[in-house]
Amino acid sequence: MPPSDVVAAEALVSVHPLHVQWGDCDPADIVFYPNYFAWFDAGTWRLLAAAGFTLKELRRIGSIGFPIVSVDAKFFAPAAVQDHIAVHSRIIEWGRSSFHVGHRIQRADGTLLVEGREKRVLAQPDPAQPGKIKGMAIPPEMIRRLGCAG
Amino acid sequence: MPPSDVVAAEALVSVHPLHVQWGDCDPADIVFYPNYFAWFDAGTWRLLAAAGFTLKELRRIGSIGFPIVSVDAKFFAPAAVQDHIAVHSRIIEWGRSSFHVGHRIQRADGTLLVEGREKRVLAQPDPAQPGKIKGMAIPPEMIRRLGCAG
Amino acid sequence: MPPSDVVAAEALVSVHPLHVQWGDCDPADIVFYPNYFAWFDAGTWRLLAAAGFTLKELRRIGSIGFPIVSVDAKFFAPAAVQDHIAVHSRIIEWGRSSFHVGHRIQRADGTLLVEGREKRVLAQPDPAQPGKIKGMAIPPEMIRRLGCAG
Amino acid sequence: MPPSDVVAAEALVSVHPLHVQWGDCDPADIVFYPNYFAWFDAGTWRLLAAAGFTLKELRRIGSIGFPIVSVDAKFFAPAAVQDHIAVHSRIIEWGRSSFHVGHRIQRADGTLLVEGREKRVLAQPDPAQPGKIKGMAIPPEMIRRLGCAG
Repeated sequence: MPPSDVVAAEALVSVHPLHVQWGDCDPADIVFYPNYFAWFDAGTWRLLAAAGFTLKELRRIGSIGFPIVSVDAKFFAPAAVQDHIAVHSRIIEWGRSSFHVGHRIQRADGTLLVEGREKRVLAQPDPAQPGKIKGMAIPPEMIRRLGCAG
Repeated sequence: MPPSDVVAAEALVSVHPLHVQWGDCDPADIVFYPNYFAWFDAGTWRLLAAAGFTLKELRRIGSIGFPIVSVDAKFFAPAAVQDHIAVHSRIIEWGRSSFHVGHRIQRADGTLLVEGREKRVLAQPDPAQPGKIKGMAIPPEMIRRLGCAG
Repeated sequence: MPPSDVVAAEALVSVHPLHVQWGDCDPADIVFYPNYFAWFDAGTWRLLAAAGFTLKELRRIGSIGFPIVSVDAKFFAPAAVQDHIAVHSRIIEWGRSSFHVGHRIQRADGTLLVEGREKRVLAQPDPAQPGKIKGMAIPPEMIRRLGCAG
Repeated sequence: MPPSDVVAAEALVSVHPLHVQWGDCDPADIVFYPNYFAWFDAGTWRLLAAAGFTLKELRRIGSIGFPIVSVDAKFFAPAAVQDHIAVHSRIIEWGRSSFHVGHRIQRADGTLLVEGREKRVLAQPDPAQPGKIKGMAIPPEMIRRLGCAG
């Protein structure tokens, strides 16, 4: 495997196994692609929770969560009903109030199915505009615990 | 058509046309059944909104919405990709703080696909238990505007 | 524990743990109820697979799956983001070509959240009507392996 | 209006209005982002159907559909429960067997919410590998009817 895995050793990686369900698949007998993004989203939540930043903890520090800014994905091979797959998620870049999460979805045999990146912003309520949100500085402790595989 | 349609004339009916999408269907080429409940739920929201009880209005009168209590459905025929169907929703019973919604989903040719009933409770925050909810009396105006086909 | 659990000992029970995700929940901060039916459906597939009747095996014996006939559910308590829950599924009745599956969804602390029943029919292509399906007799081996908690 | 709209006039545009539902939204009261991709997917199906290439017609010409190759999206503003939005879809690039679809999702007031691109491949069964698919040449008639806004 390439050097990126060496670097990845410095980042916390969430690995979540999934069993592809009937209802995840479409009439072509393969995963309906928007479901991969639900798994990306869950991967990001799992990754942050693994570092102690559960929803409860995020709310405690004043954040309402981490809205999506942009996302992209490449699809290399399909997954079918009852395939065993796993979602690997890790931080690949930190900004002041934003962060990028890299996701790889693999079949149990190691085949890469999907690779993608999410850009998120850590958000808090904007006191100047009721009902609106704004970015908040990433806590140093979050960066320290999650590391970066970028 | 049976007498129930005469009675139904006294109730507001929400009729929502839908075009079955690829992603609504499973590897058997038919709608994945949990999606019918998403359409029931949307039917209930549409029905209440048609009577003026939008989410905004519900929040104005102190309600947080109408959690589900129970639901049942019978499936008579499947819907397939690109079928034109319609969700028909109406109130079939009023309680003090609860109500039942009857839903029928038909294909454009009139074939009955699914019939079901939801029991809902109109809910408000419970001042005695922070973070909990409790039922609230159905406003008479809601009953007057929606009627009942039961 | 109640008598029902004694009877249940004669049936295979699929217990599937789930971690409620952000995307499973609605603006009331609780699971959007149609998702419970996706978990019922997955519970039924898991239960059959646990008895050796994977999709592959079903196709081998000539079945295209087990379309839904009817379903009902009662909702006792809500599940929230990041709750740990489990779906318990078992056969509660066998017909000639149909079967009923009982599902209970509990929180990790044992609280019952949802209880429901699905009626399914084991289906095969209908040679007399291309594109249509019809029921097929439940294989005795399926009944023997899955048992019945009804 | 910018030059891109002039070019767009040479392409068929599918405009699909949607009413954001309760179940489309997450605990932050906004659309759960994977749903936008379900709307992209539906937009692509609608666009092709508008040009006569329904699923039935695709199957008639030997195609099994158009699997996703890659996708990206930028999120400019959130949509909330009961917002009226519309999905605008058009072809932005043709390859030999692939095509790119550009999607814009706007609120009824014209605010751009999401912009994204899908790369698809028109696929057919691969006679050399049972159960596998391969690309097929885009029919000239498909290109003629859909045009290109790229």
